[in-house]
Amino acid sequence: MRFTSETCSNGICEQLFLLGEIPGVLWTPEDAGARPLIVMGHGGGQHKKAPDIMGLAHRFVTECGFAVVAVDVPGHGDRPTHEEYNRIASENQARVEAGEELAPLIAGFQALVARRTVPEWQAVLDAIQQLDHVGTGPVGYWGVSLGCGLGVPFVAAEPRVRAAVLGLGGASASAGDAARITVPVEFLVQWDDERVPRDQSLALFDALASAEKTLHANPGKHGDIPAFELDSTLKFFSRHLA
Amino acid sequence: MRFTSETCSNGICEQLFLLGEIPGVLWTPEDAGARPLIVMGHGGGQHKKAPDIMGLAHRFVTECGFAVVAVDVPGHGDRPTHEEYNRIASENQARVEAGEELAPLIAGFQALVARRTVPEWQAVLDAIQQLDHVGTGPVGYWGVSLGCGLGVPFVAAEPRVRAAVLGLGGASASAGDAARITVPVEFLVQWDDERVPRDQSLALFDALASAEKTLHANPGKHGDIPAFELDSTLKFFSRHLA
Repeated sequence: MRFTSETCSNGICEQLFLLGEIPGVLWTPEDAGARPLIVMGHGGGQHKKAPDIMGLAHRFVTECGFAVVAVDVPGHGDRPTHEEYNRIASENQARVEAGEELAPLIAGFQALVARRTVPEWQAVLDAIQQLDHVGTGPVGYWGVSLGCGLGVPFVAAEPRVRAAVLGLGGASASAGDAARITVPVEFLVQWDDERVPRDQSLALFDALASAEKTLHANPGKHGDIPAFELDSTLKFFSRHLA
Repeated sequence: MRFTSETCSNGICEQLFLLGEIPGVLWTPEDAGARPLIVMGHGGGQHKKAPDIMGLAHRFVTECGFAVVAVDVPGHGDRPTHEEYNRIASENQARVEAGEELAPLIAGFQALVARRTVPEWQAVLDAIQQLDHVGTGPVGYWGVSLGCGLGVPFVAAEPRVRAAVLGLGGASASAGDAARITVPVEFLVQWDDERVPRDQSLALFDALASAEKTLHANPGKHGDIPAFELDSTLKFFSRHLA
């Protein structure tokens, strides 16, 4: 793991790193010591420092005292174009234009990408937890949309994750993985989501095996999660990790 | 309006009252002055001082500084037996045993009771808002189960209510009233509710005309709302009334 830059301001330190070919960013409070860690998965077409990721990460650091790590998904951010994923995305686009349903195509694509990102994120977690200013404290996962499609198999596979915020995703491809998740989950649904059919969202929530799981549904389209849900997210992770 | 008792302890004053034939209870902080008011509607078979009503009312007073009022629904608590309601309840029981669906019968019964409780609760609100230690500040409504069946028509009819927590109720009888509700609503669903079919709960949430409405669904049966939802309720009313 190689750090390529470090800046601190307003109580938040940001370190960019490379783990092999994976570019990532770690945010921590300025004070030393072990602390809970949130792994954040960004959305499709976004990257590790997209505004909504950064905004929430900064709140985790300043309001909860957590560390936060995010890495670019293959084909996103600082990573090279991914020929196979691009080809599949183009094919899916053509299939939707020819009348196929969007949701199962998205879900199939996310399942394919997850086969690569789950081991990548586990390796990142291994490396980050060796840092003195993070340590091996409790881990949470936050990811919606693509971050849910990749997050469900990650949380299912990774026993270090103790709580997760997921959402804006459907059951098409990940119901099997969801059935292996037993940690507390806060699950976000946009009631008028134009990308994920409502019944698919509810089915994914239903499939989670967690004894404590809570679904928060709000009106609006895929990207319109209301600001008060971020407060709820902070409260959720504080309850389960702090 | 006639007060029949008053006690203060731990910063909470409790006043029992009669408004005509309606027995009620008002909880307020010990300090003087106008403040937000929460009207609470109790569940079926409960009463104005049922443990879950009292517990949440005390938190509204001590943690938010709100006033809280609750009255007995006809046929409940300190009110006399209601012959007509009892007869209908017995008939419904027999119809369920004969194979009819429970939910529409409950909804029809609640709609009947609401024709009486809506004007009663409006009269209570008129009287309570004339008290110096309550005043005409913003009003919220909290009610689940029977408190939702009666609360939906109340909130729809009452422009003084600025925000409501509702839930454990279905759309069978109250979708029309729900479509006239435009204030922010937090709506509680028990995912394994044995009394309200899930699709009926979702349909009632769907029917609310509120631009801000948020559905919180949790695993468990009708009575199993998790404790962390009470924290969320306090936060919701604080955001909208304080």
